[in-house]
Amino acid sequence: MKTLKLDLGSRSYPIHIGSGLLEKSDLLVPHIVGNRIALVSNETVAPIYMEQLATALSEYQPLSIVLPDGEQHKTLDVLDRIFTALLSERCDRQTTLIALGGGMVGDMTGFAAACYQRGVPFIQVPTTLLAQVDASIGGKTGVNHRLGKNMVGAFHQPQCVVIDTDTLNTLPDNEFSAGIAEVVKYGLIRDPEFFGWLENNLDKILDRDEQALSFAIYQSCENKAEVVSADEREAGERALLNLGHTFGHAIEVGLGYGTWLHGEAVAAGIAMAADLSQRLGWLAGRDVERIKSLLSRAQLPIRAPASIEPSQFLDLMSVDKKTQDGRLRLVLLEAIGRALVTDDFESEHLMQTLRACRSEQ
Amino acid sequence: MKTLKLDLGSRSYPIHIGSGLLEKSDLLVPHIVGNRIALVSNETVAPIYMEQLATALSEYQPLSIVLPDGEQHKTLDVLDRIFTALLSERCDRQTTLIALGGGMVGDMTGFAAACYQRGVPFIQVPTTLLAQVDASIGGKTGVNHRLGKNMVGAFHQPQCVVIDTDTLNTLPDNEFSAGIAEVVKYGLIRDPEFFGWLENNLDKILDRDEQALSFAIYQSCENKAEVVSADEREAGERALLNLGHTFGHAIEVGLGYGTWLHGEAVAAGIAMAADLSQRLGWLAGRDVERIKSLLSRAQLPIRAPASIEPSQFLDLMSVDKKTQDGRLRLVLLEAIGRALVTDDFESEHLMQTLRACRSEQ
Repeated sequence: MKTLKLDLGSRSYPIHIGSGLLEKSDLLVPHIVGNRIALVSNETVAPIYMEQLATALSEYQPLSIVLPDGEQHKTLDVLDRIFTALLSERCDRQTTLIALGGGMVGDMTGFAAACYQRGVPFIQVPTTLLAQVDASIGGKTGVNHRLGKNMVGAFHQPQCVVIDTDTLNTLPDNEFSAGIAEVVKYGLIRDPEFFGWLENNLDKILDRDEQALSFAIYQSCENKAEVVSADEREAGERALLNLGHTFGHAIEVGLGYGTWLHGEAVAAGIAMAADLSQRLGWLAGRDVERIKSLLSRAQLPIRAPASIEPSQFLDLMSVDKKTQDGRLRLVLLEAIGRALVTDDFESEHLMQTLRACRSEQ
Repeated sequence: MKTLKLDLGSRSYPIHIGSGLLEKSDLLVPHIVGNRIALVSNETVAPIYMEQLATALSEYQPLSIVLPDGEQHKTLDVLDRIFTALLSERCDRQTTLIALGGGMVGDMTGFAAACYQRGVPFIQVPTTLLAQVDASIGGKTGVNHRLGKNMVGAFHQPQCVVIDTDTLNTLPDNEFSAGIAEVVKYGLIRDPEFFGWLENNLDKILDRDEQALSFAIYQSCENKAEVVSADEREAGERALLNLGHTFGHAIEVGLGYGTWLHGEAVAAGIAMAADLSQRLGWLAGRDVERIKSLLSRAQLPIRAPASIEPSQFLDLMSVDKKTQDGRLRLVLLEAIGRALVTDDFESEHLMQTLRACRSEQ
């Protein structure tokens, strides 16, 4: 097992990464506040892993809350079910929520914890690659609105993050690939060596080679922890973690939540950000090809779906949390390993990207 | 105009109290972050005061959002309408929300501001006595759940509070009385002189004498500001502000939100807390009578509704944010002007109070 620390002063917390951690209650117990816990999972993950975790924590007689699976259920309505379950069982402010699942479960459990009785503690136990390398770390929580992804939420840091890499053994291939999009992101925005390592080791990762996978997860978590500890509330550098996300969110909203996986939409978004960066003269064509090639090898899309017209795509992009004074701001690349947030581009260039990166009908 | 400061370090803010303040945009403008504003009100208050405020702030071309009136609408569903309105108008993170109305509007606008895009600034412009002396100050925001009052929310401090006492001229008598319950509360928990002053000046207040009313509002706000600045997150003293509220919330949930006004339920709750305090030998019978007499003179109820059985009442009380390890904790009185939070009472004494303070069928 390896342990990283996310440094946020009094709100610092450990990120444990290793095999068989679900059964190690001693990792969780020191971070459980009060004497009640509620395990929140979804209908896909709960049948596989809930019992294991509940057994490890049986002294707490945990309450189990099972949500429907899929991004389309990341809504205020489903959030309310968590509150109903907690209130029905008279859970008080000394209750710790534990998120067992992917990004949707983690985001919703974290947001429920942020709001329940104006705030209770929570713990992240991510079971998808995407949640392990990205969503479970850094305290961004929330739900979607039909008009915009992750538009309602809170910053609420977990007490700890426990990443049991064994849970990836049951992850479907498409979900596994989706997680790789966020791994590639770290290489692109700030860790060019890691990007090179990924180019050389992608096959091992796709084979779920334990050593390669552990390294990739650790490296991703370390990058994320460094960025978040420097800029918790996204006043600056943290925005770079949204590389590909403004494009990606437009795809998710445009197609309807859950049609494409979040990581798939981000992969296409990264390729589109690279394309636009090239059009602006910032990124070499050779680097754009390296990016597209790596994503493609990971079975990820590098084009937007044909069903979204470029003008609609632009409209969907304009609902973005980085927008300022009506100006769309995007994370773009100056090189592999160097990104920036900018509104310094012509909308005509963006339209060219939207047209060029659209799948054929 | 008088101005108080709520001292919370970098999140400190002014509370302005006076006549004709709705038109004084110079009080608001320094606290508007960004260049967009959304005014949130309800269908009762908006027709009377929205135009006045919108005109004062016309340079911002404010978006208006009008909610239904009544505690029964303080829900996640209605909250979502605020998000829909903001997203439909492409409001970004540089948007300031302004709450114009009573406690329900302020609580919901504040919670919407806490969650919209993970947090935008907001301003409180309370138009009911209850909101002016209590709800608009201190950053408690949230919505109700059918199983418990204010169970979903956030601590989110406003940028400033602007109390235009002229708005009380249009307040119905029952709402005015409801606000007095919270005014009396400050006297009971920490300001015995103010309680004495209220006994001597209640008739003037009920006549809405400008000078007496301004003094009562100022004194209430000063008490609230002192408590909140000492204990923002309710780790200690702030809980005393909930005198009567655990009883009161049980009445509100038991009868259905909006049947009794919040302040009416709190008044009955204060009388019940006084009754229990007497049974425990802490409060003199003479003081209990003074409390009941003052509340009655203010046209407020001092008994729980007959339709809630004591056993049901107890059950409703157990869903309370002060509950710890399954033990109900209540704010009780040791004297007029001295309160404490305690679980040190026998449930039989509480049941006696619930039976004794129930209205006759």
